[in-house]
Amino acid sequence: MILLFTDFGAGGPYVGQMKAVLARAAPEVPVVDLMADLPAFDARAAAYLLAALAGDLAPGDVVVGVVDPGVGGARDPVVVAADGRWFVGPDNGLFELVLRRAGAARWWTVSWTPARLSASFHGRDLFAPVAARLARGGRPPGSERPLTRNRRQDWPDDLAEVVYVDRFGNAMTGVRAAAMAPDARLEVGGREIPAGRTFSDVAEGQAFWYENAIGLVEIAVNRGRADRALGLAVGVGVDITT
Amino acid sequence: MILLFTDFGAGGPYVGQMKAVLARAAPEVPVVDLMADLPAFDARAAAYLLAALAGDLAPGDVVVGVVDPGVGGARDPVVVAADGRWFVGPDNGLFELVLRRAGAARWWTVSWTPARLSASFHGRDLFAPVAARLARGGRPPGSERPLTRNRRQDWPDDLAEVVYVDRFGNAMTGVRAAAMAPDARLEVGGREIPAGRTFSDVAEGQAFWYENAIGLVEIAVNRGRADRALGLAVGVGVDITT
Amino acid sequence: MILLFTDFGAGGPYVGQMKAVLARAAPEVPVVDLMADLPAFDARAAAYLLAALAGDLAPGDVVVGVVDPGVGGARDPVVVAADGRWFVGPDNGLFELVLRRAGAARWWTVSWTPARLSASFHGRDLFAPVAARLARGGRPPGSERPLTRNRRQDWPDDLAEVVYVDRFGNAMTGVRAAAMAPDARLEVGGREIPAGRTFSDVAEGQAFWYENAIGLVEIAVNRGRADRALGLAVGVGVDITT
Repeated sequence: MILLFTDFGAGGPYVGQMKAVLARAAPEVPVVDLMADLPAFDARAAAYLLAALAGDLAPGDVVVGVVDPGVGGARDPVVVAADGRWFVGPDNGLFELVLRRAGAARWWTVSWTPARLSASFHGRDLFAPVAARLARGGRPPGSERPLTRNRRQDWPDDLAEVVYVDRFGNAMTGVRAAAMAPDARLEVGGREIPAGRTFSDVAEGQAFWYENAIGLVEIAVNRGRADRALGLAVGVGVDITT
Repeated sequence: MILLFTDFGAGGPYVGQMKAVLARAAPEVPVVDLMADLPAFDARAAAYLLAALAGDLAPGDVVVGVVDPGVGGARDPVVVAADGRWFVGPDNGLFELVLRRAGAARWWTVSWTPARLSASFHGRDLFAPVAARLARGGRPPGSERPLTRNRRQDWPDDLAEVVYVDRFGNAMTGVRAAAMAPDARLEVGGREIPAGRTFSDVAEGQAFWYENAIGLVEIAVNRGRADRALGLAVGVGVDITT
Repeated sequence: MILLFTDFGAGGPYVGQMKAVLARAAPEVPVVDLMADLPAFDARAAAYLLAALAGDLAPGDVVVGVVDPGVGGARDPVVVAADGRWFVGPDNGLFELVLRRAGAARWWTVSWTPARLSASFHGRDLFAPVAARLARGGRPPGSERPLTRNRRQDWPDDLAEVVYVDRFGNAMTGVRAAAMAPDARLEVGGREIPAGRTFSDVAEGQAFWYENAIGLVEIAVNRGRADRALGLAVGVGVDITT
């Protein structure tokens, strides 16, 4: 399976062009839009989401990650293998948390140049063809590099910021619920948010945080919008204390 | 065919995770997003849309319906068979109108519990696996119940409210055009809206109602936005008199 | 491959219904959403985008183009063959630029009427079935007409207007970069926009124009939104002088 993980938007021309490339190069491989509405340009936020979503991947799956504001510039195209899953995309930190949490990982810098390489759309011209090759059992077309190369050592293991707001106004943070101490308190703008198990456990209109379905701390309001109620948006910090 | 009918949004992480589950569990079955932008939390509005869309389903089709604000709470997961089509989702009224209009229907409460069942995402963990099983010819994993169980007797046969506003600003109501008397008059906020056949039959900028392509009364403005022109939004009532 | 090119929106009911029809009529043919968020009702803007995207199509591909505000009215349904690619949709100029740039082209008016033909959704009832037929090797179900029929002679070869704004706020124009003279200057509202190669070549926040990945002149701001910075929206003109 090839999974697209991008900030391109669902209805626009970019995902469609990538899918057309993939359908021609690997017609027997299913292609799924894992996410198309990642926060624009924000490889760091996306990195925490991807690591949380990666738990459901199967061996041989290929994620094409494209959050790539530096496209056409000096950043390298890379392939990462983490616990048998492949990740293809720009070397801008997007795979940092996947790498950090992997039991076994390897890293390649892509050296292959396609016949056509636009300056602004490597998702279509470079990453999609490489993903098709990997999904069909091929090798990364480049040189293996040490895993210490170009890492984001200053990024925390859990990011106490909102990394995604969904269609309902729920705000996912970059913090794994499993990393929360039993007596941890979560505050947003000085206001404590109580913990809950799920929506139906709290009163309508009440804010709470809970472990969402991909293991992240998520702030929600039952049948309401947490983003509006609490002023939450991607990049807004949350305070976690014990 | 498996058809996803959700309020999850097209580009977000939820539909993608469901599709990944389905592609693994039933790789030979086509999966289509019937709708991803249903009004959030509004199982009643969705029920009238689904009944209108269900006319085009084929025997053996499986609809996974997820408008599920009560996820993780007391509501049951259910499977409905209506005229040879399957419907899987929460027992919150979402399938009420499909049931009411079916020639032959049956109802099961799902008793199977998957190895992983998150508190907030039964679409991925429960409904998608059950849908894959049904699409491959399996039986509903639960107990059949009488069709009288947990029905919404107080919901009308046709709902004189806006149930969906599309990208163009056209407002679909929950009223079947076939249920309109020949001399019926439709008013919005005290203003009568004349009937028409289709957009090209009325002047640019003119409001009209017509039978849309799924048989519902829809209020539109030729080359304009009915929602803005008439103050229409999901839940706004229309007055139908004869 | 069948490619959907519409102004229907990605999450709404229209694309899903078309895909369900296609999955039944041509289950072995991959279907890709080339674009679902075209500017509403704007067949002219879409025509320049389609001609730019058509360069990547392969022989035998079928584009279903639905930007169709005149649906149900006098406009004909048409099939166009251009350099071995098929285009199906309304006769409203949507294929004008594809035709004009094709080396070899033919044109048919569709005379087939499906068993069900709604007044407002020919994408589902007429264009999708015709596309399935063409994708499976069938002939256009209608009469061939001279290519001079119903052309938009007054539309320019390159349209110096914004034809699409993407999720990042980048504004695509209808002008091919290859049609720009080497010393051409581009102005927006009296302000000159310098040329660049790609995002990483200019400072953050700087506006520039460049040849985008489908060969069009696109106005962008590095890590910013050109639409907001420069007041750009679909239909806004740009001034190109030498």
